[in-house]
This record gives sequence, C-alpha cells and structure tokens, in this order.
Amino acid sequence: MAIEAARFSPSLAAAAFLARRPPPALFPFSLRRRIPLLHVLAGSSGGDGRVVALSSSELRKRRGLSSSSGAADPASDGDEKLRSLRRLFARPDVAIDAYIVPSQDAHQSEFIAECFMRRAYLTGFTGSAGTAVVTKDKAALWTDGRYFLQAEKELTHEWTLMRSGNHGVPTTSEWLNDVLPSGCRVGIDPFLFSFDAAEELKDSISNKNHELVLVRGMNLVDEIWGDARPEPPKEPTRVHDIKYAGIDVPSKLSFIRSHLTENGCDAVVISMLDEVAWLLNMRGSDVPHSPVFYSYLIVEVSTATLFVDSNKVSEDVLEHLEKAGVKLKPYEAIVSEVERLAEKGAKLWLDSSSVNAAIITAFKSSCDKHMKKKGKAGEKVEKEAYSDEPTGVENGALNAVYNVSPVTLAKSVKNEAEIEGMKNSHLRDAAALAEFWCWLEDEVCKSVPLTEVQVAEKLLEFRKKQDGFIETSFDTISGYGANGAVIHYRPTPEDCSSVGSDNLFLLDSGAQYIDGTTDITRTVHFGEPSPRQKECFTRVLQGHIALDQAVFPERTPGFVLDVLARSSLWKIGLDYRHGTGHGVGAALNVHEGPQSISYRYGNLTALQKGMIVSNEPGYYEDNSFGIRIENLLLIKELNLANSFGGISYLGFERLTFVPIQSKLIDVSLLSPSEINWVNDYHEEVWDKVSPLLSGDTRDWLWKNTRPILDVTHRYSHAQDIA
Amino acid sequence: MAIEAARFSPSLAAAAFLARRPPPALFPFSLRRRIPLLHVLAGSSGGDGRVVALSSSELRKRRGLSSSSGAADPASDGDEKLRSLRRLFARPDVAIDAYIVPSQDAHQSEFIAECFMRRAYLTGFTGSAGTAVVTKDKAALWTDGRYFLQAEKELTHEWTLMRSGNHGVPTTSEWLNDVLPSGCRVGIDPFLFSFDAAEELKDSISNKNHELVLVRGMNLVDEIWGDARPEPPKEPTRVHDIKYAGIDVPSKLSFIRSHLTENGCDAVVISMLDEVAWLLNMRGSDVPHSPVFYSYLIVEVSTATLFVDSNKVSEDVLEHLEKAGVKLKPYEAIVSEVERLAEKGAKLWLDSSSVNAAIITAFKSSCDKHMKKKGKAGEKVEKEAYSDEPTGVENGALNAVYNVSPVTLAKSVKNEAEIEGMKNSHLRDAAALAEFWCWLEDEVCKSVPLTEVQVAEKLLEFRKKQDGFIETSFDTISGYGANGAVIHYRPTPEDCSSVGSDNLFLLDSGAQYIDGTTDITRTVHFGEPSPRQKECFTRVLQGHIALDQAVFPERTPGFVLDVLARSSLWKIGLDYRHGTGHGVGAALNVHEGPQSISYRYGNLTALQKGMIVSNEPGYYEDNSFGIRIENLLLIKELNLANSFGGISYLGFERLTFVPIQSKLIDVSLLSPSEINWVNDYHEEVWDKVSPLLSGDTRDWLWKNTRPILDVTHRYSHAQDIA
Repeated sequence: MAIEAARFSPSLAAAAFLARRPPPALFPFSLRRRIPLLHVLAGSSGGDGRVVALSSSELRKRRGLSSSSGAADPASDGDEKLRSLRRLFARPDVAIDAYIVPSQDAHQSEFIAECFMRRAYLTGFTGSAGTAVVTKDKAALWTDGRYFLQAEKELTHEWTLMRSGNHGVPTTSEWLNDVLPSGCRVGIDPFLFSFDAAEELKDSISNKNHELVLVRGMNLVDEIWGDARPEPPKEPTRVHDIKYAGIDVPSKLSFIRSHLTENGCDAVVISMLDEVAWLLNMRGSDVPHSPVFYSYLIVEVSTATLFVDSNKVSEDVLEHLEKAGVKLKPYEAIVSEVERLAEKGAKLWLDSSSVNAAIITAFKSSCDKHMKKKGKAGEKVEKEAYSDEPTGVENGALNAVYNVSPVTLAKSVKNEAEIEGMKNSHLRDAAALAEFWCWLEDEVCKSVPLTEVQVAEKLLEFRKKQDGFIETSFDTISGYGANGAVIHYRPTPEDCSSVGSDNLFLLDSGAQYIDGTTDITRTVHFGEPSPRQKECFTRVLQGHIALDQAVFPERTPGFVLDVLARSSLWKIGLDYRHGTGHGVGAALNVHEGPQSISYRYGNLTALQKGMIVSNEPGYYEDNSFGIRIENLLLIKELNLANSFGGISYLGFERLTFVPIQSKLIDVSLLSPSEINWVNDYHEEVWDKVSPLLSGDTRDWLWKNTRPILDVTHRYSHAQDIA
Repeated sequence: MAIEAARFSPSLAAAAFLARRPPPALFPFSLRRRIPLLHVLAGSSGGDGRVVALSSSELRKRRGLSSSSGAADPASDGDEKLRSLRRLFARPDVAIDAYIVPSQDAHQSEFIAECFMRRAYLTGFTGSAGTAVVTKDKAALWTDGRYFLQAEKELTHEWTLMRSGNHGVPTTSEWLNDVLPSGCRVGIDPFLFSFDAAEELKDSISNKNHELVLVRGMNLVDEIWGDARPEPPKEPTRVHDIKYAGIDVPSKLSFIRSHLTENGCDAVVISMLDEVAWLLNMRGSDVPHSPVFYSYLIVEVSTATLFVDSNKVSEDVLEHLEKAGVKLKPYEAIVSEVERLAEKGAKLWLDSSSVNAAIITAFKSSCDKHMKKKGKAGEKVEKEAYSDEPTGVENGALNAVYNVSPVTLAKSVKNEAEIEGMKNSHLRDAAALAEFWCWLEDEVCKSVPLTEVQVAEKLLEFRKKQDGFIETSFDTISGYGANGAVIHYRPTPEDCSSVGSDNLFLLDSGAQYIDGTTDITRTVHFGEPSPRQKECFTRVLQGHIALDQAVFPERTPGFVLDVLARSSLWKIGLDYRHGTGHGVGAALNVHEGPQSISYRYGNLTALQKGMIVSNEPGYYEDNSFGIRIENLLLIKELNLANSFGGISYLGFERLTFVPIQSKLIDVSLLSPSEINWVNDYHEEVWDKVSPLLSGDTRDWLWKNTRPILDVTHRYSHAQDIA
C-alpha cells in the first residue's frame, strides 16, 4: 500500500502549505512525526494522497448502524452543533474565542475508533484528513485535494472549505491570526496534539498575541455529542504468541530499562499503540486494520504499568502481564500517574513528537509544583498554567529527556520469529491472491459484471480462508481505469466502476494475519494493453527491479535509494507523487517508522538489517490509468566478495510472491538482467506458492510464472563472440 | 580531477574530526564554504584526499629559487622562528597567549601565492593543508592522513604533530581549551578567517572563557618573516574577451545591482577571486592553476570599485574597466572603504562564509560608531572592539544582509559563449591527450624508462602546443600501480615510480585555456590487466555511464544522483572515499560551487541547466592500484516525450572526448545499453577529435575508438524472437 500524505496536525499543515517542490511526498503517518517539515500534495492536480483510515462509505455505513451517533444528515443539525459548541466557549471554565478540532486520537494513530472521530461528527465531513476551526462567528475546515469534492458535498453552508495546498489558502494559524482580533484565547484538547505540535501551534499564533489554551477535563465536541457519542471500543486483547513475537516481555522490558539507565532516566511513557502492543507481546482490535488496543504504558526501572480498560484484559492476558511484572491501571489514570512520578522527582524519557500535550504539560506542571514545595522557587521555574506563559521543552528538561521513543527502532528491526511469521503469512497471502486473480481473470473474460467493490469483497473472501487471517491491513484500493490514477481511490458501493477488459486494473490490498502483516499492489490488464500502458508499466517495473536489486553500505538512509526506483521513469519525463517505500510492522501496523524510502531528504534513519520496507514505484496518468507494483522487502546483510571500508553491505530479500503480469511488459525495454529478474522472481513464486495451490489456481500460477524470454543463453552466446 | 578534502579552517576541522560515517567526502574547497558540517577523511587508512595547491616538491623547488625565503632547512631556524613569534605575543599592542596560523589567504582561495604561505614558512611543513597553533610553551600542527609522513619529516622536534582524524586527536579549539589556563587570549589574523569561521572559533574557545583576539594591522608571521618574505604577486591582468565571456561587464553589474535593489542593499563586497574575475571579465595569474588576481570588488547601486594593485592594470584593462564604470582603488583600501560605507549608512550584502572577518568586523564596528554618533546609543549597540564582547551576525544585521554572494550561482550557470569556449577547449585538450597517450603507449611498449614526473611533463608539452593554452588547472596526478591508489598522489622527481606495463596507470590532469578549463582522468594498462582490475574498472565505468545517462527533474540536488555512480561498485562491496562530481569554472577555477554530486546530503543546491560538473567515480585498492574515469558534463534541458508535473527534465552533455581503454572492460558485465554507450562515446570521440589529428596519433585514435562489441544487432534479434 502506498503511503498517505494528508493526516497532519494543524500546525504541521502550516509547513505543508508552503511546500514548493512540485512532486509532493506521501509519508506514512507514523513517519511524519519524525520529519520536521511535512510536504503534502498540492491540490491543483486533484489530489494524490490516499485514504488509510475508514473510507467515507464505511464510516457512513457504520453510522447508519449506530443510529445514535446523530450524524445522519449534517445539514439538519449542523447549525445546532456549532451553536452548542460556541455556547461552551463562554463557560467560565472554558473562556475561549476559538476551538481547533483535529482528526487525531490521543495516540497519533493512523486508524482511529469511531468515538474519537470528533471532527467528522462536528463538521459532517467524513474524509480521513481534515482540521476544523471554529470561532465565535466563523467555522472553517481544512482538507487536501483528495477531499475537496467530498467536503463540498458534506459541509453545510456555515462551514468554509479551506482547500489546503491551493494558492493563497492560509494555514489554520495564519487564518486565526487573520480573523481574530489580537490577544484571543484559542482552545484545544491537549490529548489530541502531540506536545511538539502544540508548541508549534502556540508559537505560530503568538505572532498575534493569541494564547493557546489547553482545555482540560473535557473535549468540547464530546460535550455536545453527549449520549449519542459511541462508546470507546471495548474489544478484548490477546497475547501475541511468543512463537510469533520471538522475544519475551521481560527481555524487551529489560532492553528498555537498560536504555533508561544509560540515559539517566527513571521511566518512559509509551503512547503509540503499536509500541505498547509490541513491547507487551499483546494485540487488540480497538481500531480497524491495526491489531492494537487503546492504552498507555509506563516502564520504570523496576516496575511497569499498563493503562488500559481492565475489561479488555482476560485472565490469560493478566497472567501474561503478571509474569512480566506489568501492573494494570485504568486508561484514564495516565495523567495522575505521570504527576505522581513528577512528585517523586522521577526523570522521564518523553518522546515529545508522539506523547500528547496533556501528558507532558501535566508532568511539567507537576515538576514545577514539586520544586516550589521543596523551596527551590528561586530556580528557573515555569508558571503553573501551561497556557499562561510561554514554555519550551528546554524549561521542562530538568526532569525529562526528550528523545525518540526507545521502542521505535527496536520494533522496526525484526527478530527471527517475526521474520519467519512475515514470510509464512506472505506465502498464505500469496495463495489467496493467486486464487483471487485466477477467479477474477476468468470472470472478466466471461464478461461477468463485477464492480470494484465486489472484487475487493471477493478478495476478502479468499483471504478469510487462509489460516490465521484476522482482517484487512487497510481499506482495499480497487481502481479500474481512470480510478487507478487516483492514488487514494476508495470505491464505494454507490459510486464505483465495473472492472472490465478495456483498461488497467490497480489493486492495492493487505491483510493482518496472526503471524504477519501484508501489503501488495499489482496492476493488470484483462484485454489488450496499449503501447503507452506497456511502456509506463515496464518503466515502473524497471524502477521496482532496480530498488529490489540494490546493494548499499550500512548507515545508508532510505532516501539515497529512492532515485533507483524513479530513474527509469525520469528518462522519459515521468514521475510519481508519492514515496517509494514505508516500514511495515510484524503482525502490527501496515505503516511504521522510523525508516522510509522517499525523495524527501528529511528522514536520515539508516536502513538496517531486519527492517521491512515496501517497494512501490508507480505512475498515474490523470483521467486515464494508474500503475503501481508493490512488494515488501526484508533488509538483510549480504556476504559479498569485498567489504570496502570494513563495513557491512546490505540488500533486500523479497517477502511477496505474486506474479507480475507479463502481458504488460515491453520486453524490448528490459536489459537481460532485468529479464532474468522477472524470470527468477516468477520461478521463485512458482516454487514457493504452487505447493499451497491446486486445480485451476495452480494452472493459473503455472501460466503466469513462465519465463518472459530466455535471453540469457542468446546473450551469453553474443558475449562469447566478443 | 577529484575533489579535495582537507583544506579546512581550524574551526571546521572541529566538526570534521567528529565525522562518524566511514567513507569521508572530498569536497571542493569552494563548496565547502556552503556546507555546515565538513567531514574530512579519517586518517587510519593512510589518507584519501588530494593535494590541489602547490605540491611539496614544487614548493621546495620555488623556495630553492627564492633563496631569501629562509625556509631552506627548517631544523636550523625553526626554534628561532618560534622564539620570535612568542616575543611578539608579549607586545602591548598584541598581548596574546596563543596564535593560530591557518593555510588560507584572505580570499578562501584553493591555490595561493607564496607570500601567503605563512603556515609553511613558520612550521617548515609544506603540505597544502594544515593549521599551526603556537602557545607560549607549545607548538602544534594539525594535518590529515595525506600528510602524516611528510609532516613527520619536515617538522622540528619543537612541533607536535596532531594527526587529524585519528582517534582521540583533539581539534585546535579542544586543544587550546585543554592546554591554556582559563581566560586566555587567542590571536588570529582576521583576514585569514571567513567571518563564519571566526565566529565558530570564538564560540568553541569561549567554553574555557578564552577570548578570540583579532590581531589587526599586522600578521605576526609576516613580522618575523621580514624582508625574506616573497613579494606579493604582481602579474599583469588581462581582459577576458567578450567572445569567451559572453556577457559584458555592464550587463553583469546591472544583474548584480538588480539583486541588490531587490534585497534592499546598497552595495555588495565580492571577495572570492574567481567571482571578481568572472564579474569583471578579467583574468590574471597571481596564483598557480587559477587565472585570477588578488583583489576585492565592491558593487554599489551606481558605482563599482575594484581594489587591486594598480601596477597589474594595463591601459587596455583600465579602459575596459572605465567603460563599465569601474573605478580602481588600492588592494589595501578595502577595509577603509567598507568603513566609509558604514559611515554613509549603506546597507551591505555580505557573504559571511567567504568574506573575511577583518572586513565584516570592521564594517560592524564602523556601523556601531556611526550609530553612537547619531545619538542612537540607547539602541542595542555592540561594543567597539570585536574581541571584547561576544557579537553575532544577528547584531550586525541592522545594516547588512548576510547571504550567499549573488555572483556564485550566476557564475556557475554558463552562458552560450562560455559553453562554446568550454567545448572548443575540450576538443583541443582531447587532441593533446590523444597525442600524449599515443606517445606514451609507444614508449612503454618499447620499454623506455619514464617516471611519473617525466610523463606529466611530456603531457604538458603536448598541451602547450594547443592554441590558447595557459597552464595546468591543477598539479597533474600521475600515479602508476600502488601510487594510483593514493587519491591525492603527486609524484616528485626525487621520489616517484616508473610507468610500466605491469600495473594500472592513473592520470588526472587538466588545463587552463584562453576559452575554457579542462579536467580529465583516464586509467590505462599497457600490459595485461588482471581479472580483478578489469572487474573493478568495469564497475567504475558502469557508475560513470549511469551518471552520464541520468535524467532528472529540475530542482534535483546533486547528491540525489550520487548513488547512480556507486551502485555498480556497491553490488560487490566496493566504494570510493570521495565525491562524484564538482563544479568547474569556464576559463576559471577547476573547482567551483555551488553545485556538487556527493553522497553527503548537506549541499541542497539544485543542478541547473548550464552548470558544469565532473563525473568521476573511482576505486582504490590500497597498495595495489587506483582507478578513476572522469569526464566533464554540461547540464542541459531535455526535450522528452513527457514532462510530468509540467516541469523541465535535465540531463548531461559530455564535454570530454578521450578514449576509455577497451582492454580494461569486462564486456560480460555490461548490459547492451552500456556497451552501446561505450561504442557511441567512442564514435563521438572519433568524429570530433580525429579532424584535429594526423599520422600515428590519428591511427591511435582510430584503434582506440573501435566498437567493443556490436551486440545491438544480436540483441535486437533476440528481442524479435520474443
């Protein structure tokens, strides 16, 4: 699955709008946190990002089921919601002039539970990316080019649509600085902004002497949502078997603790849901597509506490946690626990790019109170109320180390068991895909009418038959013809195309299995592709092969390799407006950091042995067709004849084994080694996947893994002549 | 010519020593100024940079001629020089505890005149890179791995050799902070440090409360050098003909003036010698290898003043300058003129990375005096003496814009006439090289004993016969066998190898012509290369071809393309420890910025149409052999079938036309398109250069431009079968 662009906090959006380089990046959300300047797609081309949270249709569908959500017809009650929200502005315990409602939950999650979809509830706009800002007399919604049409349909007349990325469209802060008289109070729910994002927002509105007010104790949208608000998810958690996790929890905790000790810290707060799940070898199903559960974790030098709704924790899980010395506390107790640690004088490791402003500011305030009590008031001490005085990370640094979470890198470097699980799940996934493609080819050839949605549903059926299948790892992108050129395309039953034999069909999908996570894109043609389509497909394939075959010295950041995937397209003046590779979790989030392969130079994380990345160059011809070829790759150390500089050289091992349609390859463009790559890959696909298949599907696989051309011999012969 | 690493100011060296990534970069000196963190080669491998200033032997030779220089035997008077220097420390108008003597002149030049070789005079160490620091009881010299052996030989026992890059070796600042008691005064000649470098130095020694003292009015080494110091160069300047310059001086000045106006500036100080030469369409010969002359230039909105020794300016040149409205003032008047501008309240454009600290601090002090006089003393005003109080660029910003010189980019983007001159001079250079290689091959086959130095001298003879030849553009690197593996190798008559037929011979050379500047490397074998040598050569060639053939969108920085030149080597675990490409001036410096192609990510300058870059991947096997293949490339806009994103796509046009030795190519490693590249290139070489040749040389060129293998037909045939 290619990587999304537009899930950004309002403050980061400010930077994004200033993006000047033409092809904007699509970064995975989890990576975005590490990248100071996020560039989001410019909107004029009609949108290039991709939805990765719930699709609008799915959201609407769910809303229909949960009739109490009150979002049935935004036009009927939109006014009332805004009126109710503004009434809250005036409450003495609130006292604000504006309120910002982002898309986030409290954990910077890519996929969020319905009860946290406050922006969608308030505005009626159901796209995955957007920020609402409400003042006493204005209401505006920022979203990017992917959603302009949808937002126009869904917003009432009281909302102004701010088309992010269009020329002259201000950022949220610029707009606030423009529409509010100097010295206003701008409110946010501090749980919904990372500390860094809140700081950035505070800085940018301070230009007009506005004050950022952290409205604690209540989310104003929840207040007006009232009883209609869905319950927080209460899905049970489960133990992630050690045979898949590879390393037991005590070992992982002791690894984290050694990092704490090295850095002179007493505790670390983990707030990213996949980091908690990885560290505790637990999984959940609180949100779609990611096997995580709402929680925080505090690891101290001798104890560890999981903050989670105890109803989600079965006896099994409880025993698992107890064995590892992990205690339970209620999810809501996180802030008071952090305050308790501050009172104890503990030094915390805090990742201010992911831990929310509610937690970090509570810690800082509590540290200050504690210092005052101890009579150290003479020292440089912050005011108590975060919003009253400018405070910076520097001030709070006395009792905290602000650094990337120690779990981030550890999680990204897979252990043997995780690699084994990824490999096994990819083979089962490949079997499901072979069944699917065999079926689809047959249906289309028989001219059976099938919509993009029906096709995606059938794929799900095939995957469900595989052992250990849990769910999709993101909403399937099923795009026929021109729809394939919309990088973020999600078909809806009401509004989708049939899959025919006159154009290309792009299918990007993935699954969560008990032992691994998959993400694969194939592009096919069931009729006769045009020379143009073949040329474009072949050049995308050449980029895919060049990256797949890359060898590189240790300490190489991913962006160094990005050009390998693009240069074949550049040669004829083509390109694609998204990154080339994102990290993938092992039976965890389909997008994870810290590594990436992108033409942006911001992410300096070196690619390391054991990391997994996607390899997904593409090409999109507006209103015509889309092409993407995506495999997942494992980074491995190579045993080469030389090792110049006495360092390791790394390369990739493929995890994905599904045929690439030969019909779309213009063999005359390929070098002999590229032809060999295709043939070798297909041979490997046959060898690995055919044992899992039988009958027609096995025949289909055989047909689709035949060598495209055995030039090796002829070419070698020509060489001999030389 | 590959690009050097080790000409660094002491303060930048501090950063360099911290370099952790194994393969260190070789940056052109002129680029280095733009790059915040310079990484210099770690020394343990014995040195990987390259000398680009005078070779030690040449320097020694020159010294021999100028017997008055007093550097004949460092051991005999080294003590006396240090004693004299230390006596100056105590003078009331000096009053310092340490003095730093860098290698620089006042213009950040790569090649400097002998009278400015103060570090060499003081220390006896004649290598091109090094920094001397003298305290009241200690004397230390920093140099890098290239010069450890030479420095050991040349330094007296009173000097401590600081092996930069070796583990545990402190930087100059760290050392000063270590050996001096707190609160000392550290002196420098402010002309020899860029303002940025001086600021950095000041910051780093302030950790120990040391004060940076700008010793004005005299250079302490010059004081002790006395009458023995060579005169500053007085070579005549000349007009660079408009047919080569392309744009007349009034047009260039008006371009600069439009930049001044846009930035609200009244004047700009140009201090880089090649920038002055380019802007005024003048050339000189004050330093070896670069056709420049010692001078400064101030361009004001309605006037322009050249600060130069008027003896260098003939009637012709004077008339040329007068026509353009450029007045003359003495070279030494630069500081007083800048002070005059400050008094007038002029706002200056200053490139603090190149303009020296003497000029910028004089301007700042003068601004402050002026402000005080005007009774604005209540405002934030700096203390008068630069060294008394910490000052930053920010403080002086009131009357100055600190920005890259407006000449830098303009000079790097060549106009039609410059391109024409570069192309023509490259053809004449190619003819000289063909004559040379034909001659050398013959001599070596006849077993005529020839040293690396004799070979380089013969090459010079061939070049001298070409129209418009002026001089070499850098010291020829003539390295046989293991010497070729020393990237910075310079043979000396006393200590060099014979060129034989048992190993590879690497020759990196270039010339200054009236109309252009060349820089080319070829590696050949006159006997039977080993399979290992062929494999390595072929992989270097593949990198060379990949970069040569690259197509890329506008706004792409050079570092994005670097991987293309390395990936063929990486595939077998090999690499090279220098950058892949540097900018080249048109009948100007062989190294110029702002662009580069390097694996370092610091230089974000986009490659632009009209820029010239070298393409010089290599491979060096210690104690065995060295390989480098270098052509110069012109960046041009391509007319492709598509232009995705509505932007331009750029590519390269070769300027260098000299055969690449086919014998060294392992054809079995090449793809058909690589084979075609070699054959097409050689066909082009023959077509362009053969008309300039006759007799044996023409035959040699014919033999050396034959196709290596015509696989096109066979391969196409194989394709047809598909």
